[in-house]
Amino acid sequence: MRVAIAGYGNLGRGVEAAVTNAPDMELVGIFTRRDPKTVTVATDTPVYAWDSLAQQQGSIDVVVICGGSATDLPQQTPELAKLFCVVDSFDTHTNIPQHFANVDAAAREAGTVGVISCGWDPGLFSLARLYASAALPNGADYTFWGRGVSQGHSDAIRRIPGVADARQYTVPVPEAVAAARSGSNPELTIRQKHTRECFVVAQEGADLAAIEQAIVTMPNYFADYDTTVTFVSQEELDANHAGLPHGGTVIRSGRTGLDGEFGDTVEFSLALESNPYFTGSVLASVARAVHRMSEDGKVGAYTMFDIPPALLSPMSAEELRAHLM
Amino acid sequence: MRVAIAGYGNLGRGVEAAVTNAPDMELVGIFTRRDPKTVTVATDTPVYAWDSLAQQQGSIDVVVICGGSATDLPQQTPELAKLFCVVDSFDTHTNIPQHFANVDAAAREAGTVGVISCGWDPGLFSLARLYASAALPNGADYTFWGRGVSQGHSDAIRRIPGVADARQYTVPVPEAVAAARSGSNPELTIRQKHTRECFVVAQEGADLAAIEQAIVTMPNYFADYDTTVTFVSQEELDANHAGLPHGGTVIRSGRTGLDGEFGDTVEFSLALESNPYFTGSVLASVARAVHRMSEDGKVGAYTMFDIPPALLSPMSAEELRAHLM
Repeated sequence: MRVAIAGYGNLGRGVEAAVTNAPDMELVGIFTRRDPKTVTVATDTPVYAWDSLAQQQGSIDVVVICGGSATDLPQQTPELAKLFCVVDSFDTHTNIPQHFANVDAAAREAGTVGVISCGWDPGLFSLARLYASAALPNGADYTFWGRGVSQGHSDAIRRIPGVADARQYTVPVPEAVAAARSGSNPELTIRQKHTRECFVVAQEGADLAAIEQAIVTMPNYFADYDTTVTFVSQEELDANHAGLPHGGTVIRSGRTGLDGEFGDTVEFSLALESNPYFTGSVLASVARAVHRMSEDGKVGAYTMFDIPPALLSPMSAEELRAHLM
Repeated sequence: MRVAIAGYGNLGRGVEAAVTNAPDMELVGIFTRRDPKTVTVATDTPVYAWDSLAQQQGSIDVVVICGGSATDLPQQTPELAKLFCVVDSFDTHTNIPQHFANVDAAAREAGTVGVISCGWDPGLFSLARLYASAALPNGADYTFWGRGVSQGHSDAIRRIPGVADARQYTVPVPEAVAAARSGSNPELTIRQKHTRECFVVAQEGADLAAIEQAIVTMPNYFADYDTTVTFVSQEELDANHAGLPHGGTVIRSGRTGLDGEFGDTVEFSLALESNPYFTGSVLASVARAVHRMSEDGKVGAYTMFDIPPALLSPMSAEELRAHLM
């Protein structure tokens, strides 16, 4: 199957690696809104201008769209679904129903398949919440993120006057994780579940106290959390905080038995050295499923909730039953 | 949807509780090979003779078959699939391909749907292995069971002369779990992964040393494991070892990046106070999917690998996208 990548940032690089290493996929092109001559990619995949994508209908089976969720994907995914089968990682949870409707309309009209919101959250974590709630309907679930780098929060710090660079880690509170796991179904506030650790490089002569105050009081991003700010040199940030690790845990605890006699806990967790490379790997597996669904005559928008899991694997149904069941 | 249970042991009781508590299901009957008058069930569900099942075609949407994997299910599931949509928990891993073929032939001829090998292993653990291997193709996976009661191993001990009763716990070795999680992809032998703890009630005057020797040298069941035998009174066994807890962990560690630069770990785990009640709850959710697949025109045998996850949940696709994605 022939796969193209639309958008070449961290996630695009992750998809590039995963598709290149998949024996059943060929990476036929990387499409960028920048001048293709200025984009150096990690493989010998040809780089094309974004606007030339439309001319490639018929030579691409699936386009993996690697734009951002804030402004790129709401426009790009419906637009490209008019021409290609597509996969995206749209992760603004509250806008998923609207994005789904937009992609569904475009894909139905064009006879394509568009799978939205793939990756690990939304994605594998969503699946963990779904399977756990189906198996344990009488229960409650908890999602913890981290310890890992939140790029959105790091960007928010960088926009503060006097900040040269920053890295923000989201950190689950161990006591909250233990409480979720205990089966006591605690009510946990935002502040009780996660703390935020900020490593900040200040510009020379900047007012450190003012920067710290601006961070810890920032609405939505930090005000509701216990936040620590540590000022470091650019060298220290580059040496110790260059990676993009992430991960987290979905825990559902609930009760079975006619009167809830028995307590059970279901847990799914990830520890990732590189968030974009793992997310890219998940997107590549979904691209495989998209191609199979399209060949099977499906059209419209879907999420990972709708994909028979076997379609994600390069193994045949027989091999899966014999080796993984 | 109208659900029936065929076979009323521990697992049948688990399904009874789960179906009774599901707002979208009605438990229309429990079918037993025993004299129905001698079977007392936990709810007010009518109990019928097994042989009367065939007369109930048209009044049952899905039969959840709760027989054993050794001799019951290989015969019962294909037979009942000729009459009904069915779900089973067939768990003899090596015979799954043959069982699948038998159920598939029967279900295709009858126009029914049969989903085999549901529960947690095979079942949710199989799904964890599949999703993790699709997301991390360059890696290795490890399944640990326990700490929990193995009924097969408990039964094997009870068959030894001089044994009045017994309970066997399968226990994962913490060092092996840590090694699997570490990303070093260790080769682990059977002995390195699990130990076996046996609590045994001896008959009066029995030769304890002979019993212990018979256990620890028993091929397949114990000889390949480090096994401990503790003799206890019947009162102690009843007081401290009456439950059927179980659980375990599936760990896949692997590498992403063009040259495997990044190490990741995916982990799924269960801690269950009652194995049969949780398994029964999973079977009930699969019964829901079976009914939906049948209404959608599907026929033949399937496993949980083939079921779009959304079909397991009582929530609509819209609700799932809005709340669990």
